[in-house]
Amino acid sequence: MYNCAHVFSGAGYHSESKAKEYKHVCKRACQQAVDQLKAGALAVEAVAAALVELEDSPFTNAGMGSNINLSGEIECDASLMDGKSLHYGAVGAISGIKNPVLVANRLLSEAQKGKLSAGRIPPCFLVGRGAHDWAISHGVPPCPSEKMATKFSLSAYKRNKRKMELAEKMDPGHNQTKRRRQSSRNENCSECLDTVGAVVVDMQGNVAAAVSSGGLAMKHPGRVGQAAHYGCGCWAENARNMNPYSTAVSTSGCGEHLIRTMLARECSTAMQSEDAHQALLEAMQNKFISSPFLASEDRVLGGVIVLRCCRCVEPQPSTNVQGSLVEFLWSHTTESMCVGYMSAQDSKAKTHISRLPPGTVPGQSLAIEGGVCRLMNTVD
Amino acid sequence: MYNCAHVFSGAGYHSESKAKEYKHVCKRACQQAVDQLKAGALAVEAVAAALVELEDSPFTNAGMGSNINLSGEIECDASLMDGKSLHYGAVGAISGIKNPVLVANRLLSEAQKGKLSAGRIPPCFLVGRGAHDWAISHGVPPCPSEKMATKFSLSAYKRNKRKMELAEKMDPGHNQTKRRRQSSRNENCSECLDTVGAVVVDMQGNVAAAVSSGGLAMKHPGRVGQAAHYGCGCWAENARNMNPYSTAVSTSGCGEHLIRTMLARECSTAMQSEDAHQALLEAMQNKFISSPFLASEDRVLGGVIVLRCCRCVEPQPSTNVQGSLVEFLWSHTTESMCVGYMSAQDSKAKTHISRLPPGTVPGQSLAIEGGVCRLMNTVD
Repeated sequence: MYNCAHVFSGAGYHSESKAKEYKHVCKRACQQAVDQLKAGALAVEAVAAALVELEDSPFTNAGMGSNINLSGEIECDASLMDGKSLHYGAVGAISGIKNPVLVANRLLSEAQKGKLSAGRIPPCFLVGRGAHDWAISHGVPPCPSEKMATKFSLSAYKRNKRKMELAEKMDPGHNQTKRRRQSSRNENCSECLDTVGAVVVDMQGNVAAAVSSGGLAMKHPGRVGQAAHYGCGCWAENARNMNPYSTAVSTSGCGEHLIRTMLARECSTAMQSEDAHQALLEAMQNKFISSPFLASEDRVLGGVIVLRCCRCVEPQPSTNVQGSLVEFLWSHTTESMCVGYMSAQDSKAKTHISRLPPGTVPGQSLAIEGGVCRLMNTVD
Repeated sequence: MYNCAHVFSGAGYHSESKAKEYKHVCKRACQQAVDQLKAGALAVEAVAAALVELEDSPFTNAGMGSNINLSGEIECDASLMDGKSLHYGAVGAISGIKNPVLVANRLLSEAQKGKLSAGRIPPCFLVGRGAHDWAISHGVPPCPSEKMATKFSLSAYKRNKRKMELAEKMDPGHNQTKRRRQSSRNENCSECLDTVGAVVVDMQGNVAAAVSSGGLAMKHPGRVGQAAHYGCGCWAENARNMNPYSTAVSTSGCGEHLIRTMLARECSTAMQSEDAHQALLEAMQNKFISSPFLASEDRVLGGVIVLRCCRCVEPQPSTNVQGSLVEFLWSHTTESMCVGYMSAQDSKAKTHISRLPPGTVPGQSLAIEGGVCRLMNTVD
């Protein structure tokens, strides 16, 4: 019995005053996933359940309470991947849906059914109005955008709008200058990065990963971030052939940085090395902070959670008990990242706000931590 | 002087009767790119110029004459990548713009300028209405959708609609059945795959790649295909560090197959092997036709064009002339693919309709061909 869940609510900046709320929602999300797994759900269903919990929290930048864009609207991105079938579903810039991850999940399950009438290939990625209409026609309930905004997201919108107006007043030619200045530290609103995600392994050892985001604050309408980008927001692959490990990865941070480095897939590939900690450290350093794809960026902001497992613990000769090893890891270049993890053996989830070491610079340094979970499995 | 262009107008089925038109548009696109390169344009500008020519043709499924979706509308995807800066720009499900590639190119160049006001990160991917509005506000002229439909695309829409209605009448429970049947051969409309693309190398040896598509015929509104997907529709990377070759790739075919296999990036990675032909053959076989990501698909449909170059011809000791080698390759699993290629040394472009060998099955077999171009370059 594997049955583990590992979730996060954002890589960004988590104030001490809000820490309790973030930890609480991560705890509930882990519990949701593990409850589902114990009831026999597949990884992909459990990961969706964890995401619904995370999206429903008004504190996270996903679903309810998502960041508001330039036009004062909420547009969300979400995707999920099933490590068993390797199917993938995603929605981008979708409005008026409380749980975007459920639309992504429905796209995934519809695609698994095979072709549509007249041999048409079912879509794996829908955006905008079309995504909304598809969701409604597939029984996902609509939710008026004004109900998805919270007191917190509305006040952040007003604050950001003032900040933008002030910046443009002080530097009216900004958008026209050929080479724009790099932003000073903390000029970006840190609260804008609280994407949520989860990685899960089920009873059969299948992995799944999911991610959901309201996107950057004050983004242009129609902007799609890493949460809807294949290979960038999440990745899940069961062990097969040359790959001894099943791996699942979910990312958070500046969408454009995570897209251009394809960070979820890069981390998943790296996780086939024996030493998971070292492999993730090298991936974050070489494929993200020092990536040639982000050579012109002064601060590379992101975080990942990783789960990998293999049946690599020697079976006890005289018993029918087989061990399995599940490793959880997280790493981030943002100031902080809130993570939670739970296995079926735990009575409740552990949560943690990981922070960069004191004196280090966000976007140029990283934190990396993790844990191992040894699970015993009765072989039939 | 490198200065080469390699273009395609779709992997799909090219009837003998239309072959002349397809070859003609490929020829014009090559000429456009090479003219720009000779005038000193960078690869990314030249590749955009080739794409505009391909989009403007009413015969291709991109820009003018794009496939019409389920709702009777035209929604286009396009992206391009600059191998020098590794920047990328993409638009998905955009309506009312004659040349989607120009919007993708503008996104790329705006992103290269650095941050927006108040430290906001510029978007690299915009979709739907937001993409359209961004384009208009950046000076791209709008084009009424009805002007983008052609006699050919309208009659294909009517034919496909009848086909769908008939199929649903004969199998009314199709959409509800848990496991849908696989389509029989030729049930799909083959004309729906005529995506266009180009790969280019400029005078300095910079590479760029671009792709543009009207998407699958009768697609759901909001569906985004490989042409707007990072790593799936196009890829370009200049030689650096461990990579001896500059590579550029553009893909065509069934968007969902090309997305889930991330074919453009996989081919680019493969192209770092010494034997380009063998590397492309293996990539198409192992990472596409036999990909574990498409294990449930009976026919895997796609095509790629590849350009790679290196300064690997020995310089003549007593002269200041350095040689460079540019390799063009193309491969497809569709019945046919129309390609064109031209270097600055050629007086006109060569074009070719590549076909699968007789007796082979589309989606299960492949054709692969290519050429080499040895260019002499005066070293400053």
